[in-house]
Amino acid sequence: MSKYDLTKISTRAPEDADKSDTKEKTERIANALDELQNKLYAEGKHSVLIVLQGMDASGKDGAIKKIFSEVNPQGVHVQSFKKPTDEELAHDFLWRIHKHTPERGMIQIFNRSHYEDVLVTRVLGYTDDATAAHRFEIINAFEKNLLRQDTQILKFYLHISAEEQQQRFKERLEDPRKNWKYNANDLETAKSWPQYKKYYSEVFEKCGPEIPWVIVPSDQNWWKEFVISNTLLQRLQQLGLEYPTLKPD
Amino acid sequence: MSKYDLTKISTRAPEDADKSDTKEKTERIANALDELQNKLYAEGKHSVLIVLQGMDASGKDGAIKKIFSEVNPQGVHVQSFKKPTDEELAHDFLWRIHKHTPERGMIQIFNRSHYEDVLVTRVLGYTDDATAAHRFEIINAFEKNLLRQDTQILKFYLHISAEEQQQRFKERLEDPRKNWKYNANDLETAKSWPQYKKYYSEVFEKCGPEIPWVIVPSDQNWWKEFVISNTLLQRLQQLGLEYPTLKPD
Repeated sequence: MSKYDLTKISTRAPEDADKSDTKEKTERIANALDELQNKLYAEGKHSVLIVLQGMDASGKDGAIKKIFSEVNPQGVHVQSFKKPTDEELAHDFLWRIHKHTPERGMIQIFNRSHYEDVLVTRVLGYTDDATAAHRFEIINAFEKNLLRQDTQILKFYLHISAEEQQQRFKERLEDPRKNWKYNANDLETAKSWPQYKKYYSEVFEKCGPEIPWVIVPSDQNWWKEFVISNTLLQRLQQLGLEYPTLKPD
Repeated sequence: MSKYDLTKISTRAPEDADKSDTKEKTERIANALDELQNKLYAEGKHSVLIVLQGMDASGKDGAIKKIFSEVNPQGVHVQSFKKPTDEELAHDFLWRIHKHTPERGMIQIFNRSHYEDVLVTRVLGYTDDATAAHRFEIINAFEKNLLRQDTQILKFYLHISAEEQQQRFKERLEDPRKNWKYNANDLETAKSWPQYKKYYSEVFEKCGPEIPWVIVPSDQNWWKEFVISNTLLQRLQQLGLEYPTLKPD
C-alpha cells in the first residue's frame, strides 16, 4: 500500500490537538509571516511558490485569506488557474504557468496549478497514462529549474472527506453569501472522487519526494490553516533572511 | 574528435554549388513557404519554432528578412533575446523564453535564445560547468515538452569564419547604412571565439541529437539562405498540412 494512499490518511486534526490553542498559534504565525515576508522582499534573494491543490470546497480560497491576512499584499501574488483559454490550450501545458512563477523577493500562490494537467484532464480522459508519465518528468524538471533560481516550493494537498465536502456544498446552496460558489458541476466531479484519489496518489509519488507534498487534513479549517502557515513559517525561518545593509561606498 | 568540432567544419558552400542556381532555388522555396505557412495557420494543428544562433555578424537578421520575405507576417513572430532585464534575471532562465513559444498555427523565430544561457554566460563566467550541465537537461525537457505540443523545432547555427566576421565588422564601420550595427564590444567578444566554439560544440552534443542542430556554412549569404529555407521547407512538407474542410453540421 502506497504511503500516499489518500483513502488511508485522516482528514481530521489529531485527537490531542486543541482548537483554541491552535488558533492562537496560527495568529502568532500570521504576524511572524508579515515580518519574514518583509525581509524576503527587501533582500530580493529568494522567492516562494505555494501550490494549493484539493477537491472542490476543500478550502483553498479560505486558506489564502486567513494565512496571508497580515502579510503586505504587495509582496504576495495569487494566481488561480481555471479551465484553460483557447490561447492557453494552443501552447504546452506549462506555458500559462511559467508566466506566473515568482520573481526574487516575491511570494506567489497558485490556487490550482500545473498539476491539474495530470489530474482533472486524466479523469476527463484528455490525458492518457503515457502523457501523464511524460508530464511528471517535465514537471519535475520545471520545478527543479525554479529551485535553482532560489525559489522555495511548497506543495499542499487540502485533504477533506467526501462527507465534509457534501456538507460544504449544502452550505453553498443554503447560505446566500456562499451561493455564488455553488456549481452543479461540482456534484458531477464529486462522483469521480475515487479516480481523483488514485491520480493524486500518483502525483505525490512521482512529483516528490525531492519537492515533497504536504497532505493537510482539512476537514477542520483551524487545523488546515495551522498546518499550512506553520510549514511556511518554518521554511522561511530556515532561509536566514536578513535586511540588506548599506555598502560603504 | 567530436563530430561537432566547429574548427573542422567548413564555413563555405560546397565547391560544386552554383551561386545563381542556388539563389533561384531559394526564390522558389520562399514562394512555397508562403503557401505552407497559410495552411499551417488555417489548420491550427502544428506550430514551428526556429532557433537562430551564431556569433556576431553571422547573418541572423539577414536570414530572417530573406527567408520570410514572401510569408504573411501575421503568421510569423520574431523575438530577439538580448541581455536580460532585471525582471527577467529575477526569474529562471527559461521564464522569458517560454512566454514566446508559438501557439498552434504560428511560426516563431528566436533571434538568439535560451542557448545564450549556456554560451555567453559561460564565456563571461556567470555560468559554471555544473550549472550548464543542469541547464542542458532542463532545456531538453523544455524542448521535448514543446514537441509534445506539436511544435516543430529547428535549430540553426550560422557558422562563419573569423576572417569573414572581421570583414563584416569593417563593413559596419565603413557603410553608413550599417553603422548602427557596429558595436565595439563585438571586437572583445570575438577574442573569446575559441571558448565559444568549445561551448557551442557541447551544446550541439548535449542538446541534440533528438532535436538536432543544423550547422549552416554562412560565409556566403546565398548558401546560408538556401540551407535554412530548404530545411524549413522539407520539414513543413513532411507535416502533410491541409486546409480544414467544413463539417456537415
